[in-house]
Amino acid sequence: MMDDDILKLLREHPSAFLSGEELSRRLNVSRTAVWKKMNHLRSLGYEIEASTRSGYRLIQSPDLLTSSEVKSFLKTKWMGKMIHYFPSLDSTNSKAYELATKGAEEGEVVIAESQEKGRGRLGRNWFSPPSLNLYLSVILRPQIPPYQAPLITLMAAVATAGAIKKYSGLHPLIKWPNDILLKGRKVAGLLNEVRSETDRIHFVILGIGVNLNLDEKMFPKEIRSIATSMKREMGQAISRKEFLSSLLQQLEEWYAIYLKEGGGVILNAWREKAQIKGKRVKVTSWGETLSGIAVDVDSDGALILKMEDGKQRRVVAGDVEYRR
Amino acid sequence: MMDDDILKLLREHPSAFLSGEELSRRLNVSRTAVWKKMNHLRSLGYEIEASTRSGYRLIQSPDLLTSSEVKSFLKTKWMGKMIHYFPSLDSTNSKAYELATKGAEEGEVVIAESQEKGRGRLGRNWFSPPSLNLYLSVILRPQIPPYQAPLITLMAAVATAGAIKKYSGLHPLIKWPNDILLKGRKVAGLLNEVRSETDRIHFVILGIGVNLNLDEKMFPKEIRSIATSMKREMGQAISRKEFLSSLLQQLEEWYAIYLKEGGGVILNAWREKAQIKGKRVKVTSWGETLSGIAVDVDSDGALILKMEDGKQRRVVAGDVEYRR
Repeated sequence: MMDDDILKLLREHPSAFLSGEELSRRLNVSRTAVWKKMNHLRSLGYEIEASTRSGYRLIQSPDLLTSSEVKSFLKTKWMGKMIHYFPSLDSTNSKAYELATKGAEEGEVVIAESQEKGRGRLGRNWFSPPSLNLYLSVILRPQIPPYQAPLITLMAAVATAGAIKKYSGLHPLIKWPNDILLKGRKVAGLLNEVRSETDRIHFVILGIGVNLNLDEKMFPKEIRSIATSMKREMGQAISRKEFLSSLLQQLEEWYAIYLKEGGGVILNAWREKAQIKGKRVKVTSWGETLSGIAVDVDSDGALILKMEDGKQRRVVAGDVEYRR
Repeated sequence: MMDDDILKLLREHPSAFLSGEELSRRLNVSRTAVWKKMNHLRSLGYEIEASTRSGYRLIQSPDLLTSSEVKSFLKTKWMGKMIHYFPSLDSTNSKAYELATKGAEEGEVVIAESQEKGRGRLGRNWFSPPSLNLYLSVILRPQIPPYQAPLITLMAAVATAGAIKKYSGLHPLIKWPNDILLKGRKVAGLLNEVRSETDRIHFVILGIGVNLNLDEKMFPKEIRSIATSMKREMGQAISRKEFLSSLLQQLEEWYAIYLKEGGGVILNAWREKAQIKGKRVKVTSWGETLSGIAVDVDSDGALILKMEDGKQRRVVAGDVEYRR
């Protein structure tokens, strides 16, 4: 008997009691098994009222991102139908990579309440305290050549910015290559990993971290001035389940657009959400610092800079700082 | 006590006997342990003469590609100093990928006598019968952005062609993207796999299969007319250890050149060994068939075709057929 089955029955009768006898009959298990399962659900944070005469009633569900909790919010066709949920992981990307290597399918999702070794770009950490934010990794298996993988990264940034905009009504900005800013501070970050061979991609792991309900004082001092959360910018708490559902929907839609219409549409959406054209930027890339004016992002996701001497430079990785 | 230690002692006295007592003393193990080790070595194919009065003498070593057999042939500085040897594997690439994921270092090599599921490009098989050929995978950890990974593939093709030329005196041709031909037939193939994230490569697995001592009749009928072996083209058997040593040396040298001087040198070497410029080719790529004249290969390893309408097309993956 899965948690899902018993929760489904309890949810079908939101205010009424369901007797142990009826539950036992409908789930085809013993009454002792029903009783044990109720205790298990309580240990996960479910508030369940029990009465010797009337049976069981679900009072409140905990704010968990398990498959059974998220299911009723999900509006996707296939993405996130299978959620691998963990209270804690080293990193959701590492676990998703492991599962994909073992054959996990496109659209399977790994979620953790906290990450012990949450990873950011370029080997950095991603601050991942428990239960307030969203840390997830999505497995994709696009039938595209490896050189197109950067477009999948741009696609994920567009979808994440889209979900933030839709939920908050605010206007997130994509910062090249794939951070998302709200009012100039980082609210989300992406770390995408690829397994590929000469001619094809085995899989892509889209790692996405979004700061949802962190308060300002919860951020480590070093990043307090450059990081933010949706709650901080919106002034109200975020429903993690609703936001997750919205994010997965955006990802599913943009991915379908990419596969059907190609990279051009993604690039245009990215450009619109990044507003980088014409900005004076300083880029640190592979130990080198370059200053110039951002001209565009090309179809490989590289940043095109116009240097002070008028020449153009193509930058494929690095950190961007906007200048006046 | 490692195989290596006892073999080293036996090899230091190629014609003389070494007494069990001396071996036991110099290896700091019991005489029973020495006796057991001799039996173990015999089971691997070592021919060891034993005399109650005189002791042990190494008559002949088997043709195995173990670390201890290859060691005395190796002329590299770092590549192949650690060889993970297996009588049989699903595929050397899969094992190397697994080891690299667990932290195996740059230059570690996986070798198998046979592959149960030897893989070629585009999900095809690579015919991998035991003990006559060479199947190896090399772990590299270049500090380069992911988009440069194709250059590593070109580099490996150049090195493999170089080793074949040096050993055979014949002139191998690279067939885009990374097959090696002798007299028009495939003698070697490369399958490279990459683990990367947005801005950097975690590792590259160079998978290389070379047909060394296969006779014509040993090839499956379907590939007999398009595949060959070095033995078949040279008319004499190949020393697998010598060839392996030569291949690893070429890889080490070309990799150093690539890291020091960049992709341009690799591209030029590749162009010289591929002679593709101006050839009429038919390319099957992602379900589409294109005919045209090969113009060049660009810095991303893509084939540039001039189509019949005069337009240029860039092809990143596929199968090439040369036409008259």
